[in-house]
Amino acid sequence: VSLKAALIGTGYIGGSLAAALKRGGAIASSVGCDLRPGRAEAARARGLIDQVSSSAASCVEGAELVILAVPVGALSDLARAIGPALAPGALVIDVGSVKAPSLVAAEHLPEGARMVATHPIAGHEHHGPDAADPELFVGRLCMITPTARSDQESLDRAAALWRATGAEIERIEAAAHDALLAATSHLPHVAAFALAAALGEELARDEEAARRVAGGSLRDGTRVAGSDAQVWRDIFVANRGPLGPLISRLEAQIAALGRAIAAGDGAAIEELLDRARLSRARLIGS
Amino acid sequence: VSLKAALIGTGYIGGSLAAALKRGGAIASSVGCDLRPGRAEAARARGLIDQVSSSAASCVEGAELVILAVPVGALSDLARAIGPALAPGALVIDVGSVKAPSLVAAEHLPEGARMVATHPIAGHEHHGPDAADPELFVGRLCMITPTARSDQESLDRAAALWRATGAEIERIEAAAHDALLAATSHLPHVAAFALAAALGEELARDEEAARRVAGGSLRDGTRVAGSDAQVWRDIFVANRGPLGPLISRLEAQIAALGRAIAAGDGAAIEELLDRARLSRARLIGS
Repeated sequence: VSLKAALIGTGYIGGSLAAALKRGGAIASSVGCDLRPGRAEAARARGLIDQVSSSAASCVEGAELVILAVPVGALSDLARAIGPALAPGALVIDVGSVKAPSLVAAEHLPEGARMVATHPIAGHEHHGPDAADPELFVGRLCMITPTARSDQESLDRAAALWRATGAEIERIEAAAHDALLAATSHLPHVAAFALAAALGEELARDEEAARRVAGGSLRDGTRVAGSDAQVWRDIFVANRGPLGPLISRLEAQIAALGRAIAAGDGAAIEELLDRARLSRARLIGS
Repeated sequence: VSLKAALIGTGYIGGSLAAALKRGGAIASSVGCDLRPGRAEAARARGLIDQVSSSAASCVEGAELVILAVPVGALSDLARAIGPALAPGALVIDVGSVKAPSLVAAEHLPEGARMVATHPIAGHEHHGPDAADPELFVGRLCMITPTARSDQESLDRAAALWRATGAEIERIEAAAHDALLAATSHLPHVAAFALAAALGEELARDEEAARRVAGGSLRDGTRVAGSDAQVWRDIFVANRGPLGPLISRLEAQIAALGRAIAAGDGAAIEELLDRARLSRARLIGS
């Protein structure tokens, strides 16, 4: 089956998915639209989509697959806007990094509509259609989450689509997903944004020296601070429940390390560093 | 000139330097010693050094080049221990990530001794002689800092040695070095250690799921948390002056982002994220 698809949001993740599905033969043709000026046109110029549409509602008309690849804060309004225009039997999927908003958005679709929440675990530090990459999902994990508008057939169809991109599939409920991602992705992003902001203040006086000296720790520690601000604003707001206590925990660890350093307490520092090293080895492998 | 060298501390940086100098022809023969059991023997087995010595004082006897590659907190005691045994004309260099302790250590050497403080900006997330790599310094920056025991000839000799490893040289005073490195390296390490420690607590219940889901942000954000705890304990203690205000700044940024997230204040979050992204682009390039 090769589908007629609509892509709403033609940025890095959406553009990469459309390109991957096209190359994998799962999509026959695609129409895209984007609120940010020029993005849909850029996606068409790069061959990620075939046609540009000026509104979300017109974009989904006649589409058998609708991909919502917008910041998660926009999902509910978008579901309301496209609901009446959806073709019978169309499958809607989103690709957001928080799944609670997908559940809410699904409730805004008409009763007969089908929506499956999905989330590919793939780098966010790039953005825009120009960075899109049909190989982005190969070997990556894609989480599949049922909504109130999912039945077994739509879950199977969504899983098959992601497998066509080269991704591996894992099914997970929305709440478990959001708690797990708060720790494994959203908190590391908080740390990277805060570190980059703190260093920006400090090094403003001598950026040239900083650029010359900056080693791997600065580069790696701030890499994801280059991520899209609107996308991450929405992720942080949508997942603030699970994320809040984690941010407090990170603050507490930095404060504890700061106190031990200020006191010159070598034993306390070493204890914390050993614990951190072991944590990392357990979570990632050494 | 091919020198007789003594390597005190046969870990990742010391072992890599000895191997690089040997391969570059700057070292004819080398004796090494290490306080940690088995390390010097492992360094000899890997061909990083030629001979093992059981004490620092016996290690430096007859050496024309003495490399101090130990945690910076050990430098002063080490200088006192080797001072009487140094051969006339011997050049002592250290490789520590904070230069204030090198200045103090130099004062503990006899009047006629020659010591130059040096610091290669090269990854610390590996450790031990087994990870040593003679290519480690190729194209990297090495900071050269004068001490009270440096004259022009010894500064030139130290620079020539580092050039033989493939490093590029930059001269900098100790205080400027320590302030710059506090921001570009030591603070990113604080963030990585704290993040790994916080996640270790949080994810202890479900490490297997975390390992499966962990994306690039977790991996990169905690990479340097795998660094040697004793080395970094000493760096943090020695550089706590410049580092203290930076840790406070990082805490303040995390607290501000945490407050904006808890309040669901999208505009404040986006402002901070935009600022972070611009900072990173200025400090590293996009």
